[in-house]
Amino acid sequence: MVEGGIYESCQAIVTPGDMDALLKCAIQHMEAAQATTVTNVTSYLLIISGALVFFMQAGFAMLCAGSVRKKNTQNSMLKNLLDACGAAIAYFCVGYGFAFGGDSTATGTTFIGTENFFGTGDIDLPVFFFQYTFAAASVTIVAGALAERCKMAAYLCYSFFLTGFVYPVAVHSVWSVAGFLSAGNSEPLLGIGMVDFAGSGVVHMTGGTTALISMYVLGSRRGRFYDLQTGEPLDQPKAMPGHSVSLQMLGSFILWFGWFGFNPGSALLLGNDNPYQADVAALCAVNTFLSSSTSCISALFYKVIVSKTRTGEASFDLIAAMNGTLAGLVAITAGCATMEPWAAIVTGAISGLLYLWSSGILIQLKLDDVVDAVPVHLVSGLWGVLVTGLLSEPELMRQAYGTAMHPGFFYSLSRGSADANLLGCQVIGSLFIMGWSVGTMLPFFFTLNYFGMLRSEAVEELVGLDVCYNGEEIFATSKAGSDGEDQELRGEYLDAYQDYRKAKQQEEEARKKRSKDHSNDGTNEDSSEPDVMFAPASDDDDSDGPAEDDRFFDDQTSV
Amino acid sequence: MVEGGIYESCQAIVTPGDMDALLKCAIQHMEAAQATTVTNVTSYLLIISGALVFFMQAGFAMLCAGSVRKKNTQNSMLKNLLDACGAAIAYFCVGYGFAFGGDSTATGTTFIGTENFFGTGDIDLPVFFFQYTFAAASVTIVAGALAERCKMAAYLCYSFFLTGFVYPVAVHSVWSVAGFLSAGNSEPLLGIGMVDFAGSGVVHMTGGTTALISMYVLGSRRGRFYDLQTGEPLDQPKAMPGHSVSLQMLGSFILWFGWFGFNPGSALLLGNDNPYQADVAALCAVNTFLSSSTSCISALFYKVIVSKTRTGEASFDLIAAMNGTLAGLVAITAGCATMEPWAAIVTGAISGLLYLWSSGILIQLKLDDVVDAVPVHLVSGLWGVLVTGLLSEPELMRQAYGTAMHPGFFYSLSRGSADANLLGCQVIGSLFIMGWSVGTMLPFFFTLNYFGMLRSEAVEELVGLDVCYNGEEIFATSKAGSDGEDQELRGEYLDAYQDYRKAKQQEEEARKKRSKDHSNDGTNEDSSEPDVMFAPASDDDDSDGPAEDDRFFDDQTSV
Amino acid sequence: MVEGGIYESCQAIVTPGDMDALLKCAIQHMEAAQATTVTNVTSYLLIISGALVFFMQAGFAMLCAGSVRKKNTQNSMLKNLLDACGAAIAYFCVGYGFAFGGDSTATGTTFIGTENFFGTGDIDLPVFFFQYTFAAASVTIVAGALAERCKMAAYLCYSFFLTGFVYPVAVHSVWSVAGFLSAGNSEPLLGIGMVDFAGSGVVHMTGGTTALISMYVLGSRRGRFYDLQTGEPLDQPKAMPGHSVSLQMLGSFILWFGWFGFNPGSALLLGNDNPYQADVAALCAVNTFLSSSTSCISALFYKVIVSKTRTGEASFDLIAAMNGTLAGLVAITAGCATMEPWAAIVTGAISGLLYLWSSGILIQLKLDDVVDAVPVHLVSGLWGVLVTGLLSEPELMRQAYGTAMHPGFFYSLSRGSADANLLGCQVIGSLFIMGWSVGTMLPFFFTLNYFGMLRSEAVEELVGLDVCYNGEEIFATSKAGSDGEDQELRGEYLDAYQDYRKAKQQEEEARKKRSKDHSNDGTNEDSSEPDVMFAPASDDDDSDGPAEDDRFFDDQTSV
Repeated sequence: MVEGGIYESCQAIVTPGDMDALLKCAIQHMEAAQATTVTNVTSYLLIISGALVFFMQAGFAMLCAGSVRKKNTQNSMLKNLLDACGAAIAYFCVGYGFAFGGDSTATGTTFIGTENFFGTGDIDLPVFFFQYTFAAASVTIVAGALAERCKMAAYLCYSFFLTGFVYPVAVHSVWSVAGFLSAGNSEPLLGIGMVDFAGSGVVHMTGGTTALISMYVLGSRRGRFYDLQTGEPLDQPKAMPGHSVSLQMLGSFILWFGWFGFNPGSALLLGNDNPYQADVAALCAVNTFLSSSTSCISALFYKVIVSKTRTGEASFDLIAAMNGTLAGLVAITAGCATMEPWAAIVTGAISGLLYLWSSGILIQLKLDDVVDAVPVHLVSGLWGVLVTGLLSEPELMRQAYGTAMHPGFFYSLSRGSADANLLGCQVIGSLFIMGWSVGTMLPFFFTLNYFGMLRSEAVEELVGLDVCYNGEEIFATSKAGSDGEDQELRGEYLDAYQDYRKAKQQEEEARKKRSKDHSNDGTNEDSSEPDVMFAPASDDDDSDGPAEDDRFFDDQTSV
Repeated sequence: MVEGGIYESCQAIVTPGDMDALLKCAIQHMEAAQATTVTNVTSYLLIISGALVFFMQAGFAMLCAGSVRKKNTQNSMLKNLLDACGAAIAYFCVGYGFAFGGDSTATGTTFIGTENFFGTGDIDLPVFFFQYTFAAASVTIVAGALAERCKMAAYLCYSFFLTGFVYPVAVHSVWSVAGFLSAGNSEPLLGIGMVDFAGSGVVHMTGGTTALISMYVLGSRRGRFYDLQTGEPLDQPKAMPGHSVSLQMLGSFILWFGWFGFNPGSALLLGNDNPYQADVAALCAVNTFLSSSTSCISALFYKVIVSKTRTGEASFDLIAAMNGTLAGLVAITAGCATMEPWAAIVTGAISGLLYLWSSGILIQLKLDDVVDAVPVHLVSGLWGVLVTGLLSEPELMRQAYGTAMHPGFFYSLSRGSADANLLGCQVIGSLFIMGWSVGTMLPFFFTLNYFGMLRSEAVEELVGLDVCYNGEEIFATSKAGSDGEDQELRGEYLDAYQDYRKAKQQEEEARKKRSKDHSNDGTNEDSSEPDVMFAPASDDDDSDGPAEDDRFFDDQTSV
Repeated sequence: MVEGGIYESCQAIVTPGDMDALLKCAIQHMEAAQATTVTNVTSYLLIISGALVFFMQAGFAMLCAGSVRKKNTQNSMLKNLLDACGAAIAYFCVGYGFAFGGDSTATGTTFIGTENFFGTGDIDLPVFFFQYTFAAASVTIVAGALAERCKMAAYLCYSFFLTGFVYPVAVHSVWSVAGFLSAGNSEPLLGIGMVDFAGSGVVHMTGGTTALISMYVLGSRRGRFYDLQTGEPLDQPKAMPGHSVSLQMLGSFILWFGWFGFNPGSALLLGNDNPYQADVAALCAVNTFLSSSTSCISALFYKVIVSKTRTGEASFDLIAAMNGTLAGLVAITAGCATMEPWAAIVTGAISGLLYLWSSGILIQLKLDDVVDAVPVHLVSGLWGVLVTGLLSEPELMRQAYGTAMHPGFFYSLSRGSADANLLGCQVIGSLFIMGWSVGTMLPFFFTLNYFGMLRSEAVEELVGLDVCYNGEEIFATSKAGSDGEDQELRGEYLDAYQDYRKAKQQEEEARKKRSKDHSNDGTNEDSSEPDVMFAPASDDDDSDGPAEDDRFFDDQTSV
């Protein structure tokens, strides 16, 4: 019992004895209190879900750290850390404004938001927080793809540009009520708009496409596809496995965990007047684990079968299983709210195979994707967007998007209408996201590359980026430690450091010699001590002739 | 104030001026809206709690990875990953149906559920998700116990069988309203049923019993209890410590974190008409941290005292502290809702000692438990179930289970009744869970073993399962890397690989020789290079005579 | 529609036809149900937020483990584990009682709580759980600061004393309604009291001040600031970098994740009658990520600029970025609820610089802070408390604390009043917290030190605390493993173990010799094998003369 509550307040303001007014007052107060409760709970749930999505930063950092060679670990992790921080600043300053600015008063369709910059205006803070965590996830997808060979400054420029401008436009188009692809638009495209519930397209394809472009412009790691001595393509790409599978596994599990904030959390954005919100969230959770599990198993067993066929012995490939899991997570992200569980299983099973297939294609194209970001995020993201156009169930569409009129293509067939409107929107949306990412990021990376700001020097790459870019502490480490502790780390960096110094000297001598006799042959004679690591590299440099940046780009054009 | 809300809607449908009807309509609508809010919030909380429980997969994976030797790390983690994935498929297809199928319409008592297979029928999705994460936790308990010596294919069979059939029957019996042990049964056993709030019995004893059986059938790791050369029992078992205590610690903390989804989250299943639900959840959280902390301290200090007594110097054993923590978590899982905090402390203090004691027993029995899964999950789980029968407080029983009639035995004594009904149910429940697990899993593992599908080959075990089962990438690694990076990993695997090849050759030669002169002595003469790792193993094989599988089983029967 | 609900219940108890009574009954029941829902949801959210804060234990453990040299890893992690466990027992037994005991009936101002010990009395369990996680966070801050040189037993005494007594008094003063600094006091200090929303002062300054004292009394690690042979101060302190940057990074990310339970979760304590609670929580989430991100970037780029200026090459220091992030998190913790986002950015930007500056000061003072706990927790915490006195916005103050009368100093200027009441409270509060911590912990550590219980022996420090204090398993490891697995760990510990034995023998011989001829010179002649690691240490000991404990303290007084 509540004394001094709504009944008493209302009694004090209505005409005594006017039961109707009293009832009206009381009921309206109760409803308002109820609505406040729901709003508050939604806010907290958005914060918790956002925290889970934010934790995916740790997942990406561990996955990338484990996937690179030890000499690049710190550099790789710093990029992940700066993604989270850079995204925070860029998204607060301009990104959110471009994405959702002015949504509350929007009437027509716009290309980009134009309000709420620098935290000004009326911002729904829980949604802002939740959306920031998505932006940070999108930008960090690229970190792994261009690991082990990208300059720090270039990476910082990239992360600001993506979070501040490129990603927000993709978000605006698909998720803002003013976006031309948005299912929430008052006049949606083809009567339905694009269904990308939690961002297979918006988040993962944007990140994945950017990853593809960056690795195309950046070129492959030295020695991965081409012989360091002759420059000839290798028969088999040289394996450059990461230094810790444990960290990779940990990262994958953290990502998986975070995905339960990513997908079910997105249901909170459906609005509190949607009575199916919690049902949708639960369906998302179930579909998320079903798709990822199936994808893991399909990728793993395809590899088992292949290895059994080729070598006679079954080999269980952990990396394939891990990336298969992630591919399944990405693929279900678009349709987790509108597909039935069996469809999630189908989506996952195929995404596991698509990941393997596209990973192989990348290698054939001599595109060097350190963490398989393109197969996992771009290809699986694209598959996720398209399959949503095929397998979205009408009743689930109604619950999540308010209309069952344009379901997935296969469902429309079953009711005899062959309605490809949704599928059409998915295709258009995919093309837009990929086109927009290519159209903005390709010139961006070309420009960085043109000014020599993108690719690390050859020697830096061989020595390891940690010593070169994150060096002060590491040099100290190397020189310190006569106590016999931490032998492993010291030894590794000390070797790298010595190679680095040798390389610098050789470069210097070679330069002097060249300025003397302009002869290319002289270089090799110089290196009286045969330095396996460096000599071929310098040889390669000198015989090929062109400037550093061009050379790396040549690697690509020869693809 | 809400315009166009419930008041207006009701006014439109009742006879004007009929205040009573208007009031009735308004109040009923308000109540319905209120109920919807509670249902939705419960759904979200189940999803978040389930996500925390799911994250325990990462905890198990890290704990196991750190507990095995480096050569088996990938293999160990892959098993954890496949547990999560296999459980998803198996639980979706049949497990949930066997556990809860048809509960909504159930009247009597059944042994097993018979509906809701393959996601069909009316499934409460948030509960389904939450329950899946429990199934995945149960199945992965075993991964650590049989680490470093179990074939991949065998493990997959196991994980499907446990999640699909064995575990669901245990769940059905204790947690389904139609279960014969269920406290929610309309006619519960002994008038009260078994109190296993979050699954000390259902989840941990099922997993722990299976772990015990598996390690009995599988046999100990080669060289752990028996001399590799002579086959004689060792005076002291050979320590085979894990390769990373940091990973073990990380795993333990992740498990602890996840437990706050496991125990308090289970209060959500009490139903929204239970007014004490949130109080129960808070009590669970408090009891969870008290029991685990006390257990950690009791295990650690018992070891300190023992080491001080024996050697004169106090030794603080991190592994004991860590496993003590986990033992305390398992022990409180059954009674966290019905015990007072002081009882949680008692439960924890004793579980820490029981863990140490049973861990010692296992070693005496020459049962090789790589992660102490049996002491932590089976013994502590059993203790947790029993202590719940002793120390469940009447008022807390009423809040969680709706009746204070049959409290814990000691409480009944204090009111002079010596009511052992609850304790009886706990004993019967424990016996059932252990009996059921033994009855199903023992034949299962025997069968696998009979067909040679269970135990790794001797040489595989020595070389490490990573190279043998997860090999492709690792071979590539070994052959690659002339850059001097990742020396440690390469060196380790390269050595293992060479040993493996040598071993294969020796086996081949030995086989040829045997087919020539059928003499057992010939083998040793063969190995002109004395190979410390392999020679004794092959020697052992030849002198003992029996087939591989039998030999490992002999290890056990000699216990 | 709900049949048999509130309407029917009320109809049954009121006079038929008395519409007013029926309405009153129904509305009051509805309100009560609504209030129950809100209470329950708050309880669950406190549990989840508390779980996130608890997970910060894993963050601290990984951060410390990565920051120490490999030989001290287990010891470091065990301290973190025991913090969590010790805090649980101490906080349950006495800590919570000292902090909040008797709050519900409190009228005036008290120094310390006097009820609710050992879980007795009427305790709000969700709040109790949430507060425990804060206590555990505070106590574990110190673990890193005194890593690599503190005895186990001393650490246990410390953690009980801090959680059981020192920290609770700080909590009582600032957060209990009976605290003299509390903004919730019926007659708050200077009309407003101290604003420390989630504990920059209470949690972090208490921990940070204790860290400072402990490292002052304990002394620096051997060889860090003084030459091991001559005892002369080194020109440059010897770098003793941690053994795994990956673990440090992981730890930092986990802490960051947990902070989203720490800060937004604290809004739940504002009470359910505060209508802005959820808004406050969202603001906290946003401010938390903005401050930390800015702080990371300001610390990183300051270092980049310095390195560029000094060496001509930009060096990106990952450790600086990581600790900068943590500093920004600590700094925003006091004012996250009352500062606008731009102010959070300012707070973060400056905290990044303060961290670098104070870290440098510590080194100049020859205070050896292994994880930079003092710059991150004490200095940033102090800055956070003070900036809250400068930049708290009036309207946000009203939402969180119910009054806009005494905002931050700069805001008061803008309305022409120069109201320094809040700032005054912040200064007084900071002085109290630091004074209280120094006043209790300094005598405590001095006493421990006086009895030789604090500092590890010189030889223990050189050999590594793992072997010395956590030894049993590790000795086993060293002796075991003839299989060639885990070479790295074994090698390292085996070397350390041999050095340790040699050192013991030398000590023994030296002692015999000394008792023979009382000559200091004899020692060096003894060591026929020149042992680089140990000889200088013993030399240092003998020539300096004073007892072990004094010697370490001398290190400090020479500061």
